[in-house]
Amino acid sequence: MIRVGIAGAAGYTAGELIRILVNHPAVELRYLQSESHREEPIGRVHRDLLYSKQVFTDLDFDDIDVLFLCMGHGVSARFLSENKIPPSVRVIDLSNDFRLRASAGNFVYGLPELNKDKIMECQRVANPGCFATAIELALLPFAKSGLLTDRITVFGITGSTGAGQRPTEETHYSNRAQNLSVYKVFTHQHLGEIRETLQEAGAKTEPDIAFVPVRGCHTRGIMVNVVFQSKATLEELTTLYKTYYEQHPFVLMSDEPVSLKQVVNTNYCFIHPDKEGDNVLVTSMIDNLIKGASGQAVQNMNLMFGLDEMTGLRLKANYF
Amino acid sequence: MIRVGIAGAAGYTAGELIRILVNHPAVELRYLQSESHREEPIGRVHRDLLYSKQVFTDLDFDDIDVLFLCMGHGVSARFLSENKIPPSVRVIDLSNDFRLRASAGNFVYGLPELNKDKIMECQRVANPGCFATAIELALLPFAKSGLLTDRITVFGITGSTGAGQRPTEETHYSNRAQNLSVYKVFTHQHLGEIRETLQEAGAKTEPDIAFVPVRGCHTRGIMVNVVFQSKATLEELTTLYKTYYEQHPFVLMSDEPVSLKQVVNTNYCFIHPDKEGDNVLVTSMIDNLIKGASGQAVQNMNLMFGLDEMTGLRLKANYF
Amino acid sequence: MIRVGIAGAAGYTAGELIRILVNHPAVELRYLQSESHREEPIGRVHRDLLYSKQVFTDLDFDDIDVLFLCMGHGVSARFLSENKIPPSVRVIDLSNDFRLRASAGNFVYGLPELNKDKIMECQRVANPGCFATAIELALLPFAKSGLLTDRITVFGITGSTGAGQRPTEETHYSNRAQNLSVYKVFTHQHLGEIRETLQEAGAKTEPDIAFVPVRGCHTRGIMVNVVFQSKATLEELTTLYKTYYEQHPFVLMSDEPVSLKQVVNTNYCFIHPDKEGDNVLVTSMIDNLIKGASGQAVQNMNLMFGLDEMTGLRLKANYF
Amino acid sequence: MIRVGIAGAAGYTAGELIRILVNHPAVELRYLQSESHREEPIGRVHRDLLYSKQVFTDLDFDDIDVLFLCMGHGVSARFLSENKIPPSVRVIDLSNDFRLRASAGNFVYGLPELNKDKIMECQRVANPGCFATAIELALLPFAKSGLLTDRITVFGITGSTGAGQRPTEETHYSNRAQNLSVYKVFTHQHLGEIRETLQEAGAKTEPDIAFVPVRGCHTRGIMVNVVFQSKATLEELTTLYKTYYEQHPFVLMSDEPVSLKQVVNTNYCFIHPDKEGDNVLVTSMIDNLIKGASGQAVQNMNLMFGLDEMTGLRLKANYF
Repeated sequence: MIRVGIAGAAGYTAGELIRILVNHPAVELRYLQSESHREEPIGRVHRDLLYSKQVFTDLDFDDIDVLFLCMGHGVSARFLSENKIPPSVRVIDLSNDFRLRASAGNFVYGLPELNKDKIMECQRVANPGCFATAIELALLPFAKSGLLTDRITVFGITGSTGAGQRPTEETHYSNRAQNLSVYKVFTHQHLGEIRETLQEAGAKTEPDIAFVPVRGCHTRGIMVNVVFQSKATLEELTTLYKTYYEQHPFVLMSDEPVSLKQVVNTNYCFIHPDKEGDNVLVTSMIDNLIKGASGQAVQNMNLMFGLDEMTGLRLKANYF
Repeated sequence: MIRVGIAGAAGYTAGELIRILVNHPAVELRYLQSESHREEPIGRVHRDLLYSKQVFTDLDFDDIDVLFLCMGHGVSARFLSENKIPPSVRVIDLSNDFRLRASAGNFVYGLPELNKDKIMECQRVANPGCFATAIELALLPFAKSGLLTDRITVFGITGSTGAGQRPTEETHYSNRAQNLSVYKVFTHQHLGEIRETLQEAGAKTEPDIAFVPVRGCHTRGIMVNVVFQSKATLEELTTLYKTYYEQHPFVLMSDEPVSLKQVVNTNYCFIHPDKEGDNVLVTSMIDNLIKGASGQAVQNMNLMFGLDEMTGLRLKANYF
Repeated sequence: MIRVGIAGAAGYTAGELIRILVNHPAVELRYLQSESHREEPIGRVHRDLLYSKQVFTDLDFDDIDVLFLCMGHGVSARFLSENKIPPSVRVIDLSNDFRLRASAGNFVYGLPELNKDKIMECQRVANPGCFATAIELALLPFAKSGLLTDRITVFGITGSTGAGQRPTEETHYSNRAQNLSVYKVFTHQHLGEIRETLQEAGAKTEPDIAFVPVRGCHTRGIMVNVVFQSKATLEELTTLYKTYYEQHPFVLMSDEPVSLKQVVNTNYCFIHPDKEGDNVLVTSMIDNLIKGASGQAVQNMNLMFGLDEMTGLRLKANYF
Repeated sequence: MIRVGIAGAAGYTAGELIRILVNHPAVELRYLQSESHREEPIGRVHRDLLYSKQVFTDLDFDDIDVLFLCMGHGVSARFLSENKIPPSVRVIDLSNDFRLRASAGNFVYGLPELNKDKIMECQRVANPGCFATAIELALLPFAKSGLLTDRITVFGITGSTGAGQRPTEETHYSNRAQNLSVYKVFTHQHLGEIRETLQEAGAKTEPDIAFVPVRGCHTRGIMVNVVFQSKATLEELTTLYKTYYEQHPFVLMSDEPVSLKQVVNTNYCFIHPDKEGDNVLVTSMIDNLIKGASGQAVQNMNLMFGLDEMTGLRLKANYF
């Protein structure tokens, strides 16, 4: 059994991670660290887990095989510098502290659909951002083909869980329900990792991406619509994508248009391409908390420990 | 023109009040008081009012005919004791400070469907609570008839705007969307004014009300389902209600079942009675921010100043 | 492996059943019968299951161990009379055709929290209705104690999936969103099975239940609020319930108030009692499609085949 | 008083039109034509209008000043060819039958922000499409300036009311809630009128527009995000837009980012521009049923009859 510790176990992404790992057949949840909730049963915070007797505790690094860092951005780096983690303990970080090459150190960028081999052999993984995951999966095959030369316009819609746990005016139900707004126009913090990933995949030039993120009136899930121009036919593009994703069980190409709830509460990414004239649309859908965060973290753990990458991740879609 | 001042003009209920009064044909909005937003255009806070040039200011009690108090519960009483309001200025308080007989002083309970004559002649009105309005309107004719003897079970569902403006865990979109929960079971703070009102209307004994409030996953509106037993036929009950509300244009009896969005964004209360055996159900629907707060406040202002009570209150329902 | 056939496999409850059974470790999905979609991949209808290669087919009764009937009410009875099912094939019917004693024949009422032993030994199970499940679980311990004498008022709120698959005016998003309405007041079709179940559990007289069903603006889940009077203390009631449900892993007593999303996408029922004076409130929450239909059907299958009743039913809650 | 007749008065857009016109100070609603609901009170269909005594009837063309056509696309043309409308009766058509130059005949394209003078003098108006209105208002000043040369990418999100009244799988609450999907990718039927309008406004070449429409999980409102490249500074663009819309009271330029509920249930369009490098984003928001249909129709009627264009259109925003 893989002995697991989670730092920051009372947060949203940690909650999803625990929901997945309590049923993972090869995992033993040893330490669910939370300072503010220490000694409380985890069901007091993650309230669906009412049946669990487990309580929040401190961490014991000598008694775990893998450590998930579910803390705020910037906090992971500080945590690792302040704590002495034995080299045998693998680390999966869900923040953005180690995603960019300049600050990655010995962390591998944890997008299995790009870096599966590296992930299988590494000790530390930087789990990708949610928007980054959706956008990269929409463009990886195209980037690898060397065709990615045009400027790209991306519209992404995210649910309220993307904004985190803290109640704010933006996430107040009275404001958010039945509403839509844009934010961080052309400046979203995931653009850096997206550009680096596409170049690593094979884009010949630094991709020119105009990204407009939208706050949607749903809780879970990201829909990304990527528009660019290409002379390739729809059939050629579809073949390109299907070939690329053949070896990647969590990315499914759909011949029919896709909708967000097909992937909500699962680790899947559904992709659908469309074309008219030279304009190409690639629609990509993920659950931001699962394939965009905790599910992908478990997928990475599976790979790091030599398990089938789907282990524990065959989740029932909520669908309705 | 009626010169209006609003204290606490940056809050939710004040926002709704301003949205109504900007189009009221007999009103001049003179002072929209807000300490925290002083000098800011009101459209910065009430963001649909972008076109308005008006700014938040202080109040000048000598330059107004009526003062609306849109402040937190407990704050109105303090405000009135700390400020010298000229006796000529009428006051309409939207808090619960003056609703109960014991603390009412010279305030009249502002439910026009019970106290229209008193309201027309008074200087100060305590605007009823939102749940209180919906429940009282569901029971007034029955109470007046002297038939109200059985114990009463009330289920009320309220939207997120009932919880006010401050972001909390309960109003976080990620929690509230697609969710339901009960709160303040059997102990809701409106029970006092409901009991007093029903007795004033004619209930022979202190009504025994078991009230279960529910947080719904919608923003606006209250649905109240009142269940009691009676030997009267459905026809007799319907006639009782229709007769009672004939003179009250904002309460409509529906022969067909009602739904919440029929009243959302209006000052109407829709009522539908049903019966099977001895069990009676009276369903009552209002918009908690309008008939349950700001709209009813304007209705009271209209009555106090001798206007038709519907003036400025023929609002387009949102409906969809 | 248990060889499974599903009749009416293209419907809502069948979809949920398939979503559960594709990951059930002891099940082989042999025949997914649908006349209108025969030969189509199941992912064309249940569109999250895009990865499945399985197609809709006819049924072969000689090649299955259990048959789930997921057809409309009234259709199951006809189906069984028109088809010769070998006696060795167990049958689990999700319609209301065999729930009432008068029409049950050799069907056992499939509420494991009442009839676990009978279910373990029977060949045919009538799966309870969704509202019936939630209300019965809220009252079973009380009924068994013999204390159930008072009249009972029940308010139940159901999501749009309770109304089935066919698009109607009532389920049109433009009508249903942010809306609430009552329906089938005091006459809901589940009242029969509820009364019979409570009497079987120990209620001394035919229970007098005033049930007001409400259409909520959510998709999944039922919240039931049951109000009655009792002289027992809250502690006594809580003990009564906890004792009763000790042996039933899917019913959890919560000391804190519960909310619907704690159970959405799971087979759990969460129950919370409250009391003030003589008035008692028992709140009960289930996912109508899982514990209220397909999950409970799998729970019954597990019991009929001697498996742990939780097998394949440790589902990740959607929660957000 | 303007005597009004409405053909197809039982539909969605007619409902909104009636909701506006019942309070219009210069209008008398004479004939609300509906074949399927003839003789029924209008409140049976438009159920917020319970208080109205008016019933659906036939039309008498000799007793009206203006006729609104609220029928399906294709039906308006047939209706006009089959009925003899006196030349004195003005006609406002809400379908797409007369929007394109090739089929317009004597109809003027009813976008007041482009064609105010023509509308004031014409007899017949083709009311623009909802997406067309939002997109054209986002681009008109830019097109007029002659700067519109780049290809344009447009992402538009519409609510369920955009899909009309008939219940379908796509508008089923269980499918639509918390969901997102694209449709009519690059081929939306409003592209024709958009291209014509932008050329009429001053675009030098046929605009190259890649339009991706998205079905959102809200009921009312359209958000359009238009992305293109320009060398003009944000200040220059803002000035361009503010100058253009100075004379148009229903289009408001916002210096701060906008959100959909600022315009829901109003006739306003809110516009916010943003820029980073050469990339420009113009966000445009309208209520699809009001500025995108019935409200704009009333605005056109006001202009045709010499009234202030805001008459009857100072609607209270729903906002929450």
